[in-house]
Amino acid sequence: MQLYYTPNIAENNFLDKTESQHLIKVLRKNVGDKIYSTNGNGNFYELAIVDANPKKLTFKIINETLKDKPKPNFDLYIALTKNINRIEWLIEKCTEIGISNIYPILCKNSERKHFRKDRLERIIISAIKQSQKYYLPKITEMQKFADAIKNLETKSNFIASYQKENNFLDDSLVKNENVSVFIGPEGDFNDKELQIAKENNLNCVNLSHQRLRTETAALVACQTFNALNR
Amino acid sequence: MQLYYTPNIAENNFLDKTESQHLIKVLRKNVGDKIYSTNGNGNFYELAIVDANPKKLTFKIINETLKDKPKPNFDLYIALTKNINRIEWLIEKCTEIGISNIYPILCKNSERKHFRKDRLERIIISAIKQSQKYYLPKITEMQKFADAIKNLETKSNFIASYQKENNFLDDSLVKNENVSVFIGPEGDFNDKELQIAKENNLNCVNLSHQRLRTETAALVACQTFNALNR
Repeated sequence: MQLYYTPNIAENNFLDKTESQHLIKVLRKNVGDKIYSTNGNGNFYELAIVDANPKKLTFKIINETLKDKPKPNFDLYIALTKNINRIEWLIEKCTEIGISNIYPILCKNSERKHFRKDRLERIIISAIKQSQKYYLPKITEMQKFADAIKNLETKSNFIASYQKENNFLDDSLVKNENVSVFIGPEGDFNDKELQIAKENNLNCVNLSHQRLRTETAALVACQTFNALNR
Repeated sequence: MQLYYTPNIAENNFLDKTESQHLIKVLRKNVGDKIYSTNGNGNFYELAIVDANPKKLTFKIINETLKDKPKPNFDLYIALTKNINRIEWLIEKCTEIGISNIYPILCKNSERKHFRKDRLERIIISAIKQSQKYYLPKITEMQKFADAIKNLETKSNFIASYQKENNFLDDSLVKNENVSVFIGPEGDFNDKELQIAKENNLNCVNLSHQRLRTETAALVACQTFNALNR
């Protein structure tokens, strides 16, 4: 089943040009044929083609169901890497494996201070369509590390910074709990940031027996959460 | 600590031009300064610079230790994706997280029938240097699916192909056992291949509650193994 993304289906009963063209010209779909979509908010739609226009296919809703949210929330707070490709890959993989929100953070050692949110959003949309998810992970603008910590709404909060005496994330996570994990930049969090995290009751954990690259650390944290909350 | 890769240290007591130049011109290393390397076979070398030649730095061995192999073997048998970037990225991540051998396999639905082994080897070398591993994962030339199955030497062998009734990999793995996992192409294994796997006592497992892309499936399998054998 090919899943389309139709965020505002009440006002926008059509697909974009690329998708319309592919459906009509390549897949040879016609008036009355069924297609499927989600609004990224848990709704799954069964649609019927009304106008098989290859530039702007229009449809009507035949059936609508609300899908259960499968898991508790996994929120990732992450310093973006200098090479944005690494983050793009990561976001695609995390969307596929399971993630709720992505919060880019600005740390003292951050090598990247800006990013294009719309570009990452397109990657997320493409990944939910590919992996047939009904809930769209959200990504925010970049915020400062200290602000992100202050605005935390989850109770089970972790910061990954390798220290021999730390517990491991997979020994610390509790099943069915919403979780936030902070992953630092290439140069790691600095002492002041770790101090702020401690003052705000974040649990400082290791992800493996060694330091991992930023995007590998995030991926391991995401999979650790998803393995527990399968 | 920067780790270098010196596979044949007895015959080749020098670094290549790029590394030599970086050490002498950028890091301003001099005769007598220490550098560190591995042969990818568990040996860790403490070296001293003998000739600070920016085109061909030569060194002598000061100290040599054999590092323990940290874990049982995780062998990945994988159909390569059409887009080789996805495999390159996967191999870098798996090397960092922990993998022993990579066996590209040719399946009926394989979209890629050729690859450049030397290119993937360079990625593996770069990843062990970056993540400071003393054992170099090996990658073989591509072999046919059925041949790969016949040549299996591990006893704990899995094939990932999503079916509702399957067990999950993380419920099936046993700690401290060498493991082989087969991951199929974009179009999945076909029925005949699954039959061959069954006849050869491979355990057909799921990795998550849904189908994953080839490279995501491999990554999840690798992290599942490494989480268990931490």
